[in-house]
Amino acid sequence: MRLEGVLPPIPTPFADHRVDEAAMRANVARWMGTRVRGVVVLGSNGEAPLLDEDESDAAIAAARDAVPADRLCLAGTGRESTVAAVRAAKRAAALGADAVLVRTPACFRTLLTAPALTDHYRAVADAAPVPVILYNFTALTGVTLPVESVARLAEHPNVVGMKESGSDLRFVSALIDSTPDDFAVMAGSAPVFFASLLVGAAGGILALASAVPDLCVELYDRVRAGRLDEARALQRRLTPLAGLVTSTHGVPGLKAALSLLGYAAGDPRPPLRPVGPDAVDDIRRALAELARPDGRVGSLRGR
Amino acid sequence: MRLEGVLPPIPTPFADHRVDEAAMRANVARWMGTRVRGVVVLGSNGEAPLLDEDESDAAIAAARDAVPADRLCLAGTGRESTVAAVRAAKRAAALGADAVLVRTPACFRTLLTAPALTDHYRAVADAAPVPVILYNFTALTGVTLPVESVARLAEHPNVVGMKESGSDLRFVSALIDSTPDDFAVMAGSAPVFFASLLVGAAGGILALASAVPDLCVELYDRVRAGRLDEARALQRRLTPLAGLVTSTHGVPGLKAALSLLGYAAGDPRPPLRPVGPDAVDDIRRALAELARPDGRVGSLRGR
Amino acid sequence: MRLEGVLPPIPTPFADHRVDEAAMRANVARWMGTRVRGVVVLGSNGEAPLLDEDESDAAIAAARDAVPADRLCLAGTGRESTVAAVRAAKRAAALGADAVLVRTPACFRTLLTAPALTDHYRAVADAAPVPVILYNFTALTGVTLPVESVARLAEHPNVVGMKESGSDLRFVSALIDSTPDDFAVMAGSAPVFFASLLVGAAGGILALASAVPDLCVELYDRVRAGRLDEARALQRRLTPLAGLVTSTHGVPGLKAALSLLGYAAGDPRPPLRPVGPDAVDDIRRALAELARPDGRVGSLRGR
Amino acid sequence: MRLEGVLPPIPTPFADHRVDEAAMRANVARWMGTRVRGVVVLGSNGEAPLLDEDESDAAIAAARDAVPADRLCLAGTGRESTVAAVRAAKRAAALGADAVLVRTPACFRTLLTAPALTDHYRAVADAAPVPVILYNFTALTGVTLPVESVARLAEHPNVVGMKESGSDLRFVSALIDSTPDDFAVMAGSAPVFFASLLVGAAGGILALASAVPDLCVELYDRVRAGRLDEARALQRRLTPLAGLVTSTHGVPGLKAALSLLGYAAGDPRPPLRPVGPDAVDDIRRALAELARPDGRVGSLRGR
Repeated sequence: MRLEGVLPPIPTPFADHRVDEAAMRANVARWMGTRVRGVVVLGSNGEAPLLDEDESDAAIAAARDAVPADRLCLAGTGRESTVAAVRAAKRAAALGADAVLVRTPACFRTLLTAPALTDHYRAVADAAPVPVILYNFTALTGVTLPVESVARLAEHPNVVGMKESGSDLRFVSALIDSTPDDFAVMAGSAPVFFASLLVGAAGGILALASAVPDLCVELYDRVRAGRLDEARALQRRLTPLAGLVTSTHGVPGLKAALSLLGYAAGDPRPPLRPVGPDAVDDIRRALAELARPDGRVGSLRGR
Repeated sequence: MRLEGVLPPIPTPFADHRVDEAAMRANVARWMGTRVRGVVVLGSNGEAPLLDEDESDAAIAAARDAVPADRLCLAGTGRESTVAAVRAAKRAAALGADAVLVRTPACFRTLLTAPALTDHYRAVADAAPVPVILYNFTALTGVTLPVESVARLAEHPNVVGMKESGSDLRFVSALIDSTPDDFAVMAGSAPVFFASLLVGAAGGILALASAVPDLCVELYDRVRAGRLDEARALQRRLTPLAGLVTSTHGVPGLKAALSLLGYAAGDPRPPLRPVGPDAVDDIRRALAELARPDGRVGSLRGR
Repeated sequence: MRLEGVLPPIPTPFADHRVDEAAMRANVARWMGTRVRGVVVLGSNGEAPLLDEDESDAAIAAARDAVPADRLCLAGTGRESTVAAVRAAKRAAALGADAVLVRTPACFRTLLTAPALTDHYRAVADAAPVPVILYNFTALTGVTLPVESVARLAEHPNVVGMKESGSDLRFVSALIDSTPDDFAVMAGSAPVFFASLLVGAAGGILALASAVPDLCVELYDRVRAGRLDEARALQRRLTPLAGLVTSTHGVPGLKAALSLLGYAAGDPRPPLRPVGPDAVDDIRRALAELARPDGRVGSLRGR
Repeated sequence: MRLEGVLPPIPTPFADHRVDEAAMRANVARWMGTRVRGVVVLGSNGEAPLLDEDESDAAIAAARDAVPADRLCLAGTGRESTVAAVRAAKRAAALGADAVLVRTPACFRTLLTAPALTDHYRAVADAAPVPVILYNFTALTGVTLPVESVARLAEHPNVVGMKESGSDLRFVSALIDSTPDDFAVMAGSAPVFFASLLVGAAGGILALASAVPDLCVELYDRVRAGRLDEARALQRRLTPLAGLVTSTHGVPGLKAALSLLGYAAGDPRPPLRPVGPDAVDDIRRALAELARPDGRVGSLRGR
């Protein structure tokens, strides 16, 4: 499994308070019509913490159904306890996930020292039948997986990469500088996708890529082709929508964007609430802006 | 149900990676030999986020077994999703819990606005067959239940009180000042138990009370009897141990203290790790200190 | 010098961009007609960081002029560098200050370790011709003077007390528990004045006392007389105004309150801005509320 | 004045508790023998908050003496009050500074709203006889100058650029995307210098450039020449030392590095303390590492 390129962490559609498996399959099928490398089901954008174990299994199975063998179907299986994280990883593998994305625990954060986190991930990596991808999302969890821990975990044969959701490029760079070349650091913050690729990220797992998958792949391709001014210009165009569907409105914003685009996204699960009409308008405008031809963004400064 | 006095939020003992129900019953029976008003099973000190739903049920059932009808058996049933929180409250009630303690969600914290939290708690309170106690623990969750939301929720006939785990007396006072007299604000931070009672708290749900239940009840009684200098002196004696089993070493510290005292506490569940020998020594010393007669603490300043 | 009771940290009036010394004297004279123990000139409510050294001297001299010998005139002399803090303390003493209130430095906060802070305060205490009062205001500075440092500094013969501006009663209690009985811990947060006194604070240095000095003294007297229910009731009445002139609107709110009360307070110095008309209305209402007879606040819950 | 390239924010040497002007001149003369675009005197690395106004003038005058007319001598003139900031800017201009770097105020941070900050900077920009550079350093001040405020201030004819000291590339990118092409955003965090240049920063004002000026210029030149792999490799080599002289050990670490390199840097001013011998060893090792030929750093991953 080569982890690189662009993967959307896809939302989980609900119907009648249950996971809507048919909608999940239909959405994934549509993403499979784009150039993304695969999908991540049950990342934080999949409202994973709001699903029970049976629902999690259903969501993973439905997504896997719609991802062909030559694309990646990654499954988020982070849990608060090590034993639950091990079980979830095993179940996801049995359901066909190509790899598991394991978010740090968040509870008891003051007790989640570097050794505690390292032991947690080692236990999961030892037990998981598929490769493990570390996942740090400090803004959500209040926990930071230390660079030194990542460096040590990267030596485990079953730990193949990491998703870092923050936009601190110093931290992203440190992760890359401290791990072997074949350890894939995946950007998790779309507004710094361009910068992350430049410092050595292998790709991106970006909420934004659920909404505009091919534009994200285009950005990636431009960087790989060395067309940096064009890549930077595209980044600049994408950033406003990226903000709306992540930091500003979160999962509810992403679901609103997908609904506008014709996906079966539905509402988030309570206590999350749908965004209001003003937010929908902002998102609609940002989507419309992106539909204009690339050329309207003038040349960039300096370089 | 009258919520007042002292209740320990009790740890969950594990054996062979499972909830040790016999140990739970034995521990609770021992606490029932003290003057506590009851127990809270599956609070954060019960490692609730590290248990699955079946284990949660087993822990509640075991605790309930050992709590006689004239004492309170409260069960922690907070969950990240509203639907799961509703289900957990119903199951706990069916298992005999006298009331449920519902911690705020923690995930997606930036989206947990006052209306989102209010709706969440209303849904739980509407559905729960037993009274609901709000539970705010900002240091753990990064979320703060706003005073205004508490004031509104206090009007719900099935919301009877709140546990506030912080030591900011301004916030504790605001909760008391903004709610009716029969809404029980319970202190969750032992180092401010005395101060909280003075500003109007109805009692305490204190990790410390798992270790030294009768001393905590004694502090409560002294305040109720107006023996404030003696209460303050006792608070001063209790504070060092309180720090060790909460902010300094957390659940693992509390389990170590209980093991030293002869309870069947065992180790915490990974990723939590047992405290090291130095911490055990510190805790042993603090326990020994408390075993000395009260009289050695001199008179207090000023008053 | 006995540090106890209530002292307002008074605002600095400006006229034509200069310290209005006549207004300062007139205001202080009016406070001297109340039962406060003295005043603090150039605390953070005095906009001390916005004054240059000559202006600071002028403010201290003017305040001292209006404080009779049997009351206290304390001067804020915290500075970022140790050498400047030493000089400011000497100058304030020469101008007649009875003691100096020395706020922690705030810049380079990650480098302000316990030893660095201890050395800083020792140098000031060694050099100051008058007693030194430590001053911790974490919300303003991002720096916390550790309890252990306070305990050590309290042994210095020229360090007589501390102002703590936070409302965390655990921290306030720890300061009191860790220092000798004659070390005066002064509450700096009016909403926890009652609670702070109960745990052993010697008094309060409270922005609120600039606006309603005698009500603050009354609260203090009720606690000292053991009339705790009445003291708690008064605290409850005072808290709303306290919030408005500190955390909600800060110095500009306090100046607005004083202007409404007929003091010559004027506007704050830029970059601070006067509060808007809505805030003035809120403050006016809170002041009017306090003008009603004490009796309207019913009996308190529980105790 | 064209703001671009690399400028070290230079430390202020002290002797006998006074600014050592001769040492300042000698140090600056040495930097003038490198390829830096100029120097910044009295940035936060110049311990500006620890100097009084006379000392500030002396430091600026000494630095200006040693900077020829074709290089830039920028002076830090941020102050807490607007009136003091205006005066400091005027004095610096009179002393020959080419432009002033104006850090946000830090005190009363909750009152430093966007309008308050905008007014502050407008007043300074209106009055300053030389161009103004905005300066945001959230880690030091707890204050963030909002992107929208920067966008508005960038329209002022006398505001020519900004130094951003953080490493959040999302924020850096937003500043660049929201301002005209001729508004110079200068990186202030050396570990993200490469990434910042790639997203459009005009250069860097980097503590690291005090220690290894020509290597920083080399990084800048490689990016400008499109030799990105080589630039990234150099960034990777520079990052460890950058961490030691900023986030890890701060100004004292930078002074230690400069002393090792033969500059007359001396000790920081209390309450800052010199770094200990272990830190000196770490810094010596990092400097030695950089003295090795560039070639030893192997090829980078991926691109």
